[in-house]
Formats: sequence, structure tokens, C-alpha cells
Amino acid sequence: MSYTINETHDPQLTSWVESAQRPGTDFPIQNLPFGVFKRRGSAEEPRVGVAIGDQILDITACLGAGLLDGSAARAAAACAAPNLNELMALGREYWSALRRQLSALLSTDSPAYKRDPQIAGRLLAPIAGAELLLPAAIGDYTDFYASVYHATNVGSMFRPDNPLLPNYKYVPIGYHGRSSSIVVSGTPVRRPRGQSKAPDADRPGFGPTRLLDYELEVGGFIGLGNSLGQPITIDNAWEHIFGLCLVNDWSARDIQAWEYQPLGPFLAKSFATTISPWVVTLEALEPFRTSAFRRPEGDPEPLPYLFSVEDQRHGGLDLILEVYLSSQRMRDQGMEPLRLSRGSFSDMYWTLAQLVAHHSSNGCNMRPGDLIASGTVSGAAKESRGCMLELTWRGAEPIQLPTGEQRRFLEDGDEVIFRGFCERDGFARIGFGECRGVILPAIT
Amino acid sequence: MSYTINETHDPQLTSWVESAQRPGTDFPIQNLPFGVFKRRGSAEEPRVGVAIGDQILDITACLGAGLLDGSAARAAAACAAPNLNELMALGREYWSALRRQLSALLSTDSPAYKRDPQIAGRLLAPIAGAELLLPAAIGDYTDFYASVYHATNVGSMFRPDNPLLPNYKYVPIGYHGRSSSIVVSGTPVRRPRGQSKAPDADRPGFGPTRLLDYELEVGGFIGLGNSLGQPITIDNAWEHIFGLCLVNDWSARDIQAWEYQPLGPFLAKSFATTISPWVVTLEALEPFRTSAFRRPEGDPEPLPYLFSVEDQRHGGLDLILEVYLSSQRMRDQGMEPLRLSRGSFSDMYWTLAQLVAHHSSNGCNMRPGDLIASGTVSGAAKESRGCMLELTWRGAEPIQLPTGEQRRFLEDGDEVIFRGFCERDGFARIGFGECRGVILPAIT
Repeated sequence: MSYTINETHDPQLTSWVESAQRPGTDFPIQNLPFGVFKRRGSAEEPRVGVAIGDQILDITACLGAGLLDGSAARAAAACAAPNLNELMALGREYWSALRRQLSALLSTDSPAYKRDPQIAGRLLAPIAGAELLLPAAIGDYTDFYASVYHATNVGSMFRPDNPLLPNYKYVPIGYHGRSSSIVVSGTPVRRPRGQSKAPDADRPGFGPTRLLDYELEVGGFIGLGNSLGQPITIDNAWEHIFGLCLVNDWSARDIQAWEYQPLGPFLAKSFATTISPWVVTLEALEPFRTSAFRRPEGDPEPLPYLFSVEDQRHGGLDLILEVYLSSQRMRDQGMEPLRLSRGSFSDMYWTLAQLVAHHSSNGCNMRPGDLIASGTVSGAAKESRGCMLELTWRGAEPIQLPTGEQRRFLEDGDEVIFRGFCERDGFARIGFGECRGVILPAIT
Repeated sequence: MSYTINETHDPQLTSWVESAQRPGTDFPIQNLPFGVFKRRGSAEEPRVGVAIGDQILDITACLGAGLLDGSAARAAAACAAPNLNELMALGREYWSALRRQLSALLSTDSPAYKRDPQIAGRLLAPIAGAELLLPAAIGDYTDFYASVYHATNVGSMFRPDNPLLPNYKYVPIGYHGRSSSIVVSGTPVRRPRGQSKAPDADRPGFGPTRLLDYELEVGGFIGLGNSLGQPITIDNAWEHIFGLCLVNDWSARDIQAWEYQPLGPFLAKSFATTISPWVVTLEALEPFRTSAFRRPEGDPEPLPYLFSVEDQRHGGLDLILEVYLSSQRMRDQGMEPLRLSRGSFSDMYWTLAQLVAHHSSNGCNMRPGDLIASGTVSGAAKESRGCMLELTWRGAEPIQLPTGEQRRFLEDGDEVIFRGFCERDGFARIGFGECRGVILPAIT
């Protein structure tokens, strides 16, 4: 199930793309995340590339220049497309072959580059001049609820007498989200209107949400799908995931509180979901796998269909996640965004493999490009809470901004920025780039 | 908002396709529902046709033969496709133009047919020899809960102290469903496995559902979409619906009861949803519009964004819906399916226009081909209950089959058949055809 640590992970590896060596870069040669791009303002067709330093390597151009062969060439042929779906459908042999050849091509030792350094101009496009599009045509989007800290915190606000429901430690709770309103990082988000009811009101009203929130999540893109009726086992789940991105599951808490019973969140979420444009492959993340969440004494073991020794040992991911906020006034005053939280994806109660195994356990079919989000990533510490509802405890403990402003929930003009990265001694830093969105006022 | 009653609705209109005049046919010339077909066993590309009697009119062939012009020809060009999405995206002017010309072409007075009766052989394919496919590529599937009778019945079983939640009469409750597992009528449905917990058990188990159920619903296909952030108003909602089909929202009640809190039904539903292959257009249904559900004294008026006089007067639909069951033993003994229930879609608390207006009220974007299902259609009378959970009152009052068998929930080999039709004096009967599925045993 694991990828092997191989030459593409070698921390000594350098690239002829100089920006890939800059300290703190998200996209060293050991990363090579996939995305979909076109040159901004051009009429060209969107196509698949990988990020390297501050550049995008155009895979279609690499193939056209005869720089790839075998399975990598077959995989590259799937990259002349406006989304990653075709590449995702090929499976990990192809993904891995392409990664190896792209790594070799970009390395300082690349014979192709040594022979002709001019290829840089033909194969690269600056990220700064590119329009990054949704990486996949997302057929179905599923949102889980895999942090026991988040579930307990939110539960204690919505159901003080009954914060963590009896099913939580057995069932990886999830629900279907809305695919159509998934947008790529940088797309402004319009404050939604909806029904809500104040606790002391006789009846609900309709208007702009007053409790707009973000939720910090990690998304997994399905690569290989399964046939309807044929579950993916926990042992095979990792094989079916192509890679990960950051997800902002924007939430209107007042709409949610009023609508969510008995069928779950609906319009409180479906107005927009933002994802980061770069999909970091599981192969790039292999060095950062860690053990699954250690369940406290007394918690039940996962049921057999959700349990494997391998998953317990290596199903977690040591991915650091940060949330930043900048208000309009902060930007006007030239201030840097303020970090609101920092947590780790390894704090999740359920692993990605468990989410996939559970999701398909009833025979539900996954298709390449389907997105599975983790649910809000919160840890035990207050500074690791992944949404404002938790951070401000439903507004009771407002956040102080450096301008003197306060935030209980998001205001118009606020920009929310997620960052994620993996770091470990002996390996290169693997970054996810950013997932950002600015709040526009509600329509009138 | 309304379509006009025009010559295509004329009950005197007859077709040169003789089977379209057979008493009780679902598909007289006044119907002309759209579907996607190919000749069974052929290598031909699937394409769009309309049902007429026991035949399918191949729209691409009509266009090729030069029998359509103007907007109808433009609409017909969108029918050389494996789904209705392109046609749906064109809007009602085009749908209506195509309907009129197809109606004229199929009518007994058709000059084209009179000139050359041999066109029948080139334009028609027998339904019996066709493979009918999913009518649309469904981007997002939403399931509502629009019957107050169903909500009250189910609520009283799951929450005896609190059957109808306080939001019900204000919020058209809905949730996102799974698109990938929507299958067309006739596709066998595999009994799902999943987690459930007996009330007296210490912990849940995993295995085949023991409480497999159907839910009788009506589905609306979105035609024209809306942009993200731009709601569809209640006055415009009808414009955005292309047509209707029958939906079986198969449900595993034991899985549902254990998983559904707090985020709603998930794996209890996502293993399969069956829809009928023929999409009956709103224009064909125009004569059967009726007033919205008359709210009992004391119920609140819909909030303004869900209220229009026109919708209150004409937002209901007098569509009769029936459920039939045949067990394997019944089929072995040559028995006809047993009718389990009969109800009317006019009993729904919320209209289709209200569902669309609510769904998009937060700015959520709809796309052509999106499916909006009504939720289980149940009426006040016991014989109009649209699922077994209600009919047998969670198994307490089993159904007697003519073989002597009993049913509390569905058994392997059971076939469930939905039928729907509209009848009104002075108009032709408009049928929906069938939505059927047989239960296969769980995988081992």
C-alpha cells in the first residue's frame, strides 16, 4: 500500500529551476503537485502542470518535446485536458512513473536541460502569470466530520446536554456536499442569505447570514474509482486516493442551526466551498505518514471493516495547517495577515483510508475526481481550532485584530487564507500552497 | 410562467403511430417525454428520443431527414448526445419549439408522413428493443422532504416526543444526495451492508441491512441553471425546470437510524437511487397544475422568498403515483405485482417552485441536468404512504402478499415498481412509464 521512499524524495535533489531551492518554498523538486492552468489573459486551452518553485512545468509541452516515454508518456498524454480526471483514472503506476520522469527532467543533473537550457522557456510558465483553475471535475463531494475535538466542541454548543453522539466513535460521520459551488482559491465568496431564527424570536427571518465562518479541512481526491456495489477495503483505500488539497468549507452558522435537523447541513454550506489549486500526491507525502490517532483508553476499536494494522501504524499524516485572516482595514494599512490557528492533520480521529473504506462500504461508487473532505481539523489545544465558531466559542471570546477590530465571525472584506505544509528532519519541506477567499457583501 | 395550453395538448390529436392511441398508454402524442436510448445490443451511440406509444422517435434522425427547422432544429441538434443536458441548457423557447414540431410530425395529419409513410421505419425504434439510459449527466442530486405527512410519520417513529421539528413549516428541508449511484430503471439494486445498532445492543455491528426500503418520489430536472451567487426567484423557478421523472430513493432504515445524527442520511441512501428513463416536460404537464397544498389553519404562511400568488394557485401538480411489489415467488407463480399504495403529488407541503427557490436562495448554483427530488410522497390516508417504513409502521403491520408471504421490509428478489400518471377530463392521459428495480442479495 505504501509508496517507497525513492530518489524523488531525496532531500539533496536540486532543480535547475532556481526558485525551487528557495528556503521555505512550498514547491521544491520533491513535491511536484499537480494543477490545471492557463496563461492569464490568453485564449489557450487549460491543461495540467506541476508546480516547481515559482513556476509551472507544462506537462503537455514536455510530452510534445519528446522528453517523456513509457508509462510516463501515457500519463502525460492524459494531461492535455482541462482537469486531472483522466490522469487520476490511470492509477498509481502511471502517477508514479510520471513523477519519476518529471523529477529527473527538472533535476540539476537533467541531461535534457544540460543539452539545451533553452527548454526552460518552452516548458515553464510563471505561477504569477497563470490562472489556476479547479484541478478536477468533481462529480461528488463528500464532507466528513473526522476530528473528535471539532465534533465535541461544536456538539457542546449545539447540544450542550449531548455533545458527542453515541455513534461518533464507531461511524466516520459524513454527508454529501454540493459540487457545483466548489470554487478555486482566490474566487471571492458572496455572503449568503438564508433563513435563521434568533433563540428569542417567534419565527424565522430571511436575510444575510450574521454568523459567517470558515472551516479548515483537508480534501482527498479519488484517483481510481470502484464499481457500484463493490466496496473498497481499508487495505486498498490508499491506492484509490490520488492526492490532497486544502478545503475551506465556508459555513453560515445561523442558517445551519435552524435548518440542520433532521437531515443535516444544506444551504448553510452549499453557497461556496473553496479548494487550493495544487493537488499534492500521496507519493510526495509518503515521508510524512504517521500513526493513526491514538484512541484514549476506553474508546472502542474500529470495527473490522475500518481496521488494519498498516492503517493504524501509517494512516495518519503529519501535515501542519494554518489559518490566517486579513481584514480590509488590515490590508489598507499594509499589515500582514494575522495567524488565527495552527494544528495538525494527525489529530484526526479517523484516517483518510477509513473515510474511503466507510464511504464505499455500502457499495457506493467513487469516481476519479470525487472529493472527500476531512471535516474541520481541530486539535485539543485552543490554538489548533479550525473554525471561528470554536475559536471564539460562538462569539463569546472575540478575536482581536492588530487594527483594534474584533471578530466574532467573518465580516465583509475579510480574507481567509489557509496554508499547509509537511516538515520532517531528513526530508524536504512539502507545501500545499494557499487556499484563500475574500468575503463580498450579500446581494440586496 | 405558465405554458399555454396549445395544439400539442389537444385531446383530439392522434398520431400515425398506432400504439399511441391505445387506451391507457403512458405515451400518447400529447406527452412526448424525452429519454436517451440506443438499440439493444447495437454499437450505436446513445442519443435523445421521445416516447410515442410503444416506439421511440429518434430526434437525430428527424433532423437528418430535414423534418425540423428554426429553433426546433437547433434544439434537435442538441439531441445527438448521450444525455439531455445540452437540450436542457437551451431553455423553454427551444424545448417548446421542438415539442410543437415533433407533435406536428407525429400527428395523423403530418404532411411528411402522408408524403412518405416509409419514414416510420427510419425515424422510429421500438421501446421493447431499446436500451434506455440515464436521461442526464446529473452533476448534483438533491433530495427534499416536502411531504408533511411523511415527515410527521417518520418523525414520530424516530423521535416520538418530537415528530415534526419546529423548522418544518418554514424551511423546505433538503439534503445533498449521491450522484454517482443514480441508476436507470431496471438496474438491479444490491442490498447494502453497513453499520447498525440494535436498541438493546451494547455496540453496533456491520452487515447486510435488515430494513431495506423504497421511497416513492418525484424528481425535477433543472433545465436552465443560475450563476453562483444569483438566486432563482420563486416567480422564475418554473422556468428553470425542464421536466419530471419518478425517483426511488432506496433506503436502509437500520443504517439510517444509527448514522443520521447529526449530519443527516449518508450511506443509508448512497448505495443506489433509481430513476425512470423518460422525462415528462412541464409543458406536457401544464393541464394538470393545481393549487399548492392548502395549509391548515394556524400554519405559517411561506416567507416572502417562498411565496407567490401564482405558485399558490398553480404550483401543485395532480400527478397520481402508485407503488407495486412483486416477490420472486409471485413472479415464479405468474402473479401480477401487488399494488401497495396510491397517492397524489398534490399532497406535498412544498411546491417544486418553492424547492428551487429555496435551494438557490443562498446563491447556490444549479446546472442543467441537476436533479431535485421531492422526498417521499405520502398523503394523509394510509393507502397513500410512499415507503414501507410508513406502510408497515416500522414492521408492526406487515403487508400480506398473495402468495401468503409477509413483508415488513424488502427481501432479496423483491421487485419494486413505481408508476405515475396524470388524468383530467378534457385532456389526454399523461404517463411517466415505470421506475423499477429488483433487490439482489448482499455481497458476502
